[in-house]
Amino acid sequence: MPKRLFKELERAYGFDDVAIVPGQVTINPDLTSTKLTIGDRPFDIPFLASAMDGAVSPHFATLMHQMGGLGVLNAEGLYTRYEDPHSILEEIISMPQSEVTEHLQQVYSAPIQEHLIGQRVQEIRKSGATCAVSFTPQNTKRMSPLAVEAGADIVVVQSTVTTARHMSRSYRGLIFSELINTLHVPVVVGNCVTYSVAQELMETGIDGILVGVGPGSACTTREVVGVGVPQVTATLECAAAREDYFRRTGRYVAVITDGGLRTGGDVCKAIASGADGVMLGTPFAQAEEAPGQGYNWGMANAHPELPRGTRIHVGIKGTLRQILYGPTSVTDGTQNLVGALRVAMGMCGAYTVRDLHKADMVIAPSIKTEGKFYQVGL
Amino acid sequence: MPKRLFKELERAYGFDDVAIVPGQVTINPDLTSTKLTIGDRPFDIPFLASAMDGAVSPHFATLMHQMGGLGVLNAEGLYTRYEDPHSILEEIISMPQSEVTEHLQQVYSAPIQEHLIGQRVQEIRKSGATCAVSFTPQNTKRMSPLAVEAGADIVVVQSTVTTARHMSRSYRGLIFSELINTLHVPVVVGNCVTYSVAQELMETGIDGILVGVGPGSACTTREVVGVGVPQVTATLECAAAREDYFRRTGRYVAVITDGGLRTGGDVCKAIASGADGVMLGTPFAQAEEAPGQGYNWGMANAHPELPRGTRIHVGIKGTLRQILYGPTSVTDGTQNLVGALRVAMGMCGAYTVRDLHKADMVIAPSIKTEGKFYQVGL
Amino acid sequence: MPKRLFKELERAYGFDDVAIVPGQVTINPDLTSTKLTIGDRPFDIPFLASAMDGAVSPHFATLMHQMGGLGVLNAEGLYTRYEDPHSILEEIISMPQSEVTEHLQQVYSAPIQEHLIGQRVQEIRKSGATCAVSFTPQNTKRMSPLAVEAGADIVVVQSTVTTARHMSRSYRGLIFSELINTLHVPVVVGNCVTYSVAQELMETGIDGILVGVGPGSACTTREVVGVGVPQVTATLECAAAREDYFRRTGRYVAVITDGGLRTGGDVCKAIASGADGVMLGTPFAQAEEAPGQGYNWGMANAHPELPRGTRIHVGIKGTLRQILYGPTSVTDGTQNLVGALRVAMGMCGAYTVRDLHKADMVIAPSIKTEGKFYQVGL
Amino acid sequence: MPKRLFKELERAYGFDDVAIVPGQVTINPDLTSTKLTIGDRPFDIPFLASAMDGAVSPHFATLMHQMGGLGVLNAEGLYTRYEDPHSILEEIISMPQSEVTEHLQQVYSAPIQEHLIGQRVQEIRKSGATCAVSFTPQNTKRMSPLAVEAGADIVVVQSTVTTARHMSRSYRGLIFSELINTLHVPVVVGNCVTYSVAQELMETGIDGILVGVGPGSACTTREVVGVGVPQVTATLECAAAREDYFRRTGRYVAVITDGGLRTGGDVCKAIASGADGVMLGTPFAQAEEAPGQGYNWGMANAHPELPRGTRIHVGIKGTLRQILYGPTSVTDGTQNLVGALRVAMGMCGAYTVRDLHKADMVIAPSIKTEGKFYQVGL
Repeated sequence: MPKRLFKELERAYGFDDVAIVPGQVTINPDLTSTKLTIGDRPFDIPFLASAMDGAVSPHFATLMHQMGGLGVLNAEGLYTRYEDPHSILEEIISMPQSEVTEHLQQVYSAPIQEHLIGQRVQEIRKSGATCAVSFTPQNTKRMSPLAVEAGADIVVVQSTVTTARHMSRSYRGLIFSELINTLHVPVVVGNCVTYSVAQELMETGIDGILVGVGPGSACTTREVVGVGVPQVTATLECAAAREDYFRRTGRYVAVITDGGLRTGGDVCKAIASGADGVMLGTPFAQAEEAPGQGYNWGMANAHPELPRGTRIHVGIKGTLRQILYGPTSVTDGTQNLVGALRVAMGMCGAYTVRDLHKADMVIAPSIKTEGKFYQVGL
Repeated sequence: MPKRLFKELERAYGFDDVAIVPGQVTINPDLTSTKLTIGDRPFDIPFLASAMDGAVSPHFATLMHQMGGLGVLNAEGLYTRYEDPHSILEEIISMPQSEVTEHLQQVYSAPIQEHLIGQRVQEIRKSGATCAVSFTPQNTKRMSPLAVEAGADIVVVQSTVTTARHMSRSYRGLIFSELINTLHVPVVVGNCVTYSVAQELMETGIDGILVGVGPGSACTTREVVGVGVPQVTATLECAAAREDYFRRTGRYVAVITDGGLRTGGDVCKAIASGADGVMLGTPFAQAEEAPGQGYNWGMANAHPELPRGTRIHVGIKGTLRQILYGPTSVTDGTQNLVGALRVAMGMCGAYTVRDLHKADMVIAPSIKTEGKFYQVGL
Repeated sequence: MPKRLFKELERAYGFDDVAIVPGQVTINPDLTSTKLTIGDRPFDIPFLASAMDGAVSPHFATLMHQMGGLGVLNAEGLYTRYEDPHSILEEIISMPQSEVTEHLQQVYSAPIQEHLIGQRVQEIRKSGATCAVSFTPQNTKRMSPLAVEAGADIVVVQSTVTTARHMSRSYRGLIFSELINTLHVPVVVGNCVTYSVAQELMETGIDGILVGVGPGSACTTREVVGVGVPQVTATLECAAAREDYFRRTGRYVAVITDGGLRTGGDVCKAIASGADGVMLGTPFAQAEEAPGQGYNWGMANAHPELPRGTRIHVGIKGTLRQILYGPTSVTDGTQNLVGALRVAMGMCGAYTVRDLHKADMVIAPSIKTEGKFYQVGL
Repeated sequence: MPKRLFKELERAYGFDDVAIVPGQVTINPDLTSTKLTIGDRPFDIPFLASAMDGAVSPHFATLMHQMGGLGVLNAEGLYTRYEDPHSILEEIISMPQSEVTEHLQQVYSAPIQEHLIGQRVQEIRKSGATCAVSFTPQNTKRMSPLAVEAGADIVVVQSTVTTARHMSRSYRGLIFSELINTLHVPVVVGNCVTYSVAQELMETGIDGILVGVGPGSACTTREVVGVGVPQVTATLECAAAREDYFRRTGRYVAVITDGGLRTGGDVCKAIASGADGVMLGTPFAQAEEAPGQGYNWGMANAHPELPRGTRIHVGIKGTLRQILYGPTSVTDGTQNLVGALRVAMGMCGAYTVRDLHKADMVIAPSIKTEGKFYQVGL
C-alpha cells in the first residue's frame, strides 16, 4: 500500500547549512558599497542592533549611528520602566544563573512609564543620531505617537510572530495602514518568516520587515513552542515577496534578517539570501560599550508564565568599532563584520548589497567536516 | 550499469527534524480551546499520562483528571501484581543502576492478581476521576471486562506493535470488533505507525489509536530489534488514515501520539502533524506527585529474555500543575506544556486543536546549528 | 549558467540511517523460523562468525556449529602460520596499543604452513561441526583443495574487494567457475557491494556472496583509500542481483552481509535489506570463548605497507550462548541476537527470513534524536 | 499558498560526504600508473605541496621533486621577504597561540625583496628539481617574469578566489592570455570552484587550475565571509569544464584539487571526482623535513585587517618518504598516500588516474555512524 501522509514537508535551511559560491567576476573590496535604505532613511552599512536591553542603550544607539548603522531602542524595556535603569542592569548582571529568569520576570513586571519614552528618544536625538524605537503590537497604537512626537525617526513594531491580522479578545488588532497614516515616519514590522505574511505586511504600506522566528541565541521559542523557520529559508521567502511586491508596485520594502547571526559569514549569507540588512543582538552585546557588560537577554525571556530563553553570558569581545570595522587578530569571523561583507562582495563581484542578492548559494555539509583539522583516534 | 535496489526507502522525520511555520493570521492564546474527545469522553486538555508504573498510580490518575487530562493506569504492572506496590517501588528506585534491569525482570515476573484490577479501578473512580486502564493484547479479553465491571471508563489495549490481525500459537488473536461489542466503553488501541494498520484498526470500531513505535526515552526497541518509525512521520501517516476514514464513515477516531515527547515544542509538533492528543511518560514521571520519585521505566524493560530499555533517572522538575500550566521560570520547554500549546496555536492562528492540524511544517536543521550549546545527559 | 557536474552521485545508507516499519500483521516470535541455506548446507540461524583470528579458532567454530550457526576459520592466519598460535595470541593481546600494528605486521609475515591447513580442518571436523575455511584469492587455487581434502565443508574466498575478473602481473586471476568444478563443496565469495559485481559473481556458479566493503569496526579502508559503500545500500544492491539471477536461473545464491553489524537492530536491518545471513566479527570476539580474549583485529590490519585498521579492545560481554540466545539483562541490543531477530520478525509478520525481506524500511533520523533523553543546557 | 523562494539552492558535497564504489574489475596495485602532466611537465605522482611557508621551503621543493611530485614555493612569503627566513620561522613557531595571529600580521607586513625571488628559484634549480613558484594576481605581472628569468619552470597564480576578470581601482586586472604569451612556461591559476569560472580560465590558455575555496584546515574563509564550496562538488564542476573544453579544443588542462585533503581516502576521492592532481598543505607540513616543524599557517591568516585562519599545530608525523610511500604502521590514512592511491585504483580497476575518473561514487553517511570512535583534535 502506498504511503499516505497528512501533509507534505519541505526542507528549510539555516546559516550553517549553506555557503556562498564565488562569482564569475571578482572585484576589489574597496569598490563595494554597503548602503541600506529604510523608507527615506539611508545608512552606510546594513547593520542594525537589536532592541534588546543588554545590547542597545540610548548611548549605544548614538555609537551605532556614528558607525553608519542603526541601534534600535526597546521602548518597553528597562529604559522606559525605570528612571535609573543602570542599577537594574547591575542587578540582572550580578544575579546567579539559577535565579536570573525569575528576577527578569520580576523587574520586567514594573509598568512602562510613558514620559520616559519621549525622554529616551530625546537623549538619542540630542546626539544627532537617527533614532529608532521598538514597541510590541499591543502598545504601538498608544505609545508610538509619543515617541514620534519626541523626535523618533523610525518606529519598529515587533513581537515573536507578527501578522497583518491579529485576533484578540482584549484589544483591537493593530491596523498597520492606519498606523502609517498617523505616524509619518518609516515603520518596520516583524517578525515574520513566510512569503505570504511578508507580502500581506508590505501591502499595508510599511517600510521594512524583520525576518526571523526563533533563531537567536538568547531565545528558545523553537524548543518551547516548536515554532520557527531557519533564517536562510525565511529570508529567501520574504525576499521573494519583496521582489514580487516591488515589480507590482514599484515600492521597495527593506528586508532585514533578524536573529541567529553570529559571524561575518552569517551576515554575508543572509544578504546573499536576499536580505537588505541584518539585525544582530549578541554580536553587539559583546561590544565593550554595550549596556549588558558581557550579558544578553531578550524580552520573551521575561514572560511571566512561559519564559522563552534566559540571560546568556556572551563575553566582551572588543570595541564596537573593532566588531564592525576591525582591524582584528581574531580569526573566527566575529570581528570586522563590515570588512567581511566587503570581502564576500568582492569574491562575488558584487558592487552593492543588491548585487550580492544575485550570488549563488549551495547547500553545503556542516563546516566542521571541511574547515577543521580532524584526528582519527581508535 | 544503472543501480538496482532491492527496495526503495522513503525519508521519515522525528520531532527534532521539523519546525512549525507561523500562520497567516495570529490570535491571542486566551482565545484558543485545547479540547480532546475520545469516544464520548471529553477532556479539557489533550494530554494523557502513559501507562508506566513510574508515572501513573491511581492517585496520579486522579490528579490528571483534576487538571483536565487523563492518566492511564497500567493494569498489568505493580499495582495489580502487588497488594502493596509502594515497597516494590522503593526497591526499584533504590537499586543500583547495574542491577536494576535484572531486578525489574524479577519483580515483574510476579503474577497479576485479578482482584486487584477492580480494586485499583475503584480507587480511581471513588475520587470522581475518569478511569482508563491498559492491558496487553494477550490479557485483554479475559481481564478488561473485570475492569469495566468495576467502573473503568476507557480501556487501552497496548503493546509495542499492535495490528488488527495477530497470529499466535498460544492464544487466539484478539478480535477488536468483538471486544468493542462486549465492553461498551471507548477502546484505545496501539501502538501503530502506518496508514494501513491505523486504517485497519479504525475499521474494527475502536475510538482511539496510539501512535509510536520505539521513540520513547525509556525504550530501546529501535536499537535492539531495528524496528521503529520517527514520530512526525508516524503521526502524519495515522492522521491521514483518520481523515480518510472520517470522510468515508463520518466517525472521528482520536489519534494520540505516544512516546518521545519531551518539550512543549514536541507536543505542538505532534499536534501540527495531525495528532488529536499526546501521551507522555517521562515528562509526567518528572512531577513531584509521580510514583517513580524521579525515575521511570517501561514494560518492555522487564522482558525476561530481551529487555528493551531500563530504568532512567528523570529527576523531579516540579508539581504536575507547574508542568502542565506553569507559571514557570524554566526556559527549556519542559514546563507549562498547556501554555506552550496555546502560544503555538496563537502563532498559527489556530482556535482549536483541529485548526492546528492545518499549520505548515518545515524540515529544519537541527536546533544546535542555530547557535545553542546542547548537553547530552542520561 | 546551469551547474554542470562531472558525474552524478546517489545517496547510500548504513544501519544507523534506517529503521524497519512494523507490518500489517504481527505474529508471535515462537512461530518464526530463522533458517539459512548455503548451497546444500542448512543452518538453524543465519549467523556466521567472521574469519578473524580474534573471533574464530577451531574450538570457536565448533561452538558456533552447536549454536546452529557457522564459524569461518581464517586459513591464512595465526592457526596456519604457527603450530602453537596461543602464545602468539597472548603476545598480540598483551602488546601496548602504540606498538601493536607493527607487531601484527611482523607476526603475520611468518609463512603459511600448508600442513597446518588440513590439521585445523580436522580439528573442527572431529567435533562433528560443519567446517568453513577462508582464503584470499591469491592462495585459493593452491591451498583450498588441501582444506577440502581434509574435510572442509565450505570454502570462503575473501578479500577487501573481490570481483569475477582480477588483473594481476604476478598470478593469473582466480577463475571461480574452474574452482567450483574442482572443489565440489559450496563456495562463498566476497566482498562486494554492487549489483553488477554480485551478478557477475553469481554467474560463475558460487553459492554465496559476502556483502560489505569498509564498514567493520576493526577496519579503516574507507579512511585510508576512500573506498566503501554503507551496508544497507550494499545489501539492497546485492539482494536485487540475487532476485534477478534467481528469476532467470532458478538458482538461489545466499547473500550474507558481512561487517559493521553491532546490535540485534543491525542484524534485523541487514535481513530486511535482503540479506539471507549475516557475518559478524566484533560481536563474536566479545564472547568469553573467543580466542581474542576481548580484543579483535582484521587481516588488512597487518598489511606490511598500508595497514588498514588496528587491534581494538572490544571487551568480553558474555558467553556465546548469551550473545546469541540470551537471556540477558543487557538492554543495548548486543545480546540475544537471535531473540531480537525473532521479535523483529514477529513485529513484521514474517514467518521466515525470506518474509522479512518484504518488510518496509524508512530512512530515519539518527537514533540519538529519538531514543535518548536530552537535557537542554545553557 | 505555495512556497516562493528568492533562489534555488543545490546540495554540495565534501570528502566526508562521499565514498568510492569498487569497480567491476579489480587489478593489482603494481599495475597502476599515477602520472600527472601540467603543460609539458610530467610528474610520476599527482601530488603537489601547497605554497605555504610552513610546508614548502626551497629545500622541501627539492625533496618533493626527488619523490616524483612538485613543491610550490610561495614567492610572496618569508623566503622573499627575508634574507634569513629561518629566524622568522623560529619566532612564529615559538609564539604563544594567543599572540600568533598578531605576530603573523606583523612579519608578513615586511616588503617582498624582489632580488630574493630569483635567488630562491636558483636554489631550487641548482638541485636539479623542477621549480614552481606562486604569486598573487596583484604581483604576478611584475614579479613572475623575474622568477622565470631565474629559471622557474611553472608559475602559479593564486588567491582565495580568482576569476578571469577581476575589477580593481588600484591596479589593472591581470590578463592571463597576455601573461601566458609573456612567460613561455606552464601557468597554473586558482582558486576556483565552479564550471563557468573554470571554463573561462581555461579559455585564456592556462595549463592548470587549482580547485578549492575555503576547505583547508588552516583557513576559516567560510566562517569569516561565508564563501566556499565543498571540494567534491567543486572538483566535479571543474572537471566537467575540463572535459567540455577538451572535447571542444583538444587541449587538456590539469585540474588540481587544493585544500581540505587530510588522508589517502580524501586524495582518492578528489581524483575519483575528476581531479588530475592534488595539492596538500597540512599533510606535507607534518613531514620531518617541512620548515614549519610541526606547525602550519596560510597567507590569508596574516591579512592585516581580516585574518582568516591561524597557525595550527599539526605535529610531525614522519619523513616525507613515509608520508608519500610508507611503509607505515599508522592506520588512519595519513601515511603512504601513494600506496593508498594505488590500492584504491586497484579496487576500482583503474590503470591510470584518468581511469579512476570513471569510478562511481556514492553519497554515504558520515563514517562515524558505522561503528568508529572519532576524536576531534585541534
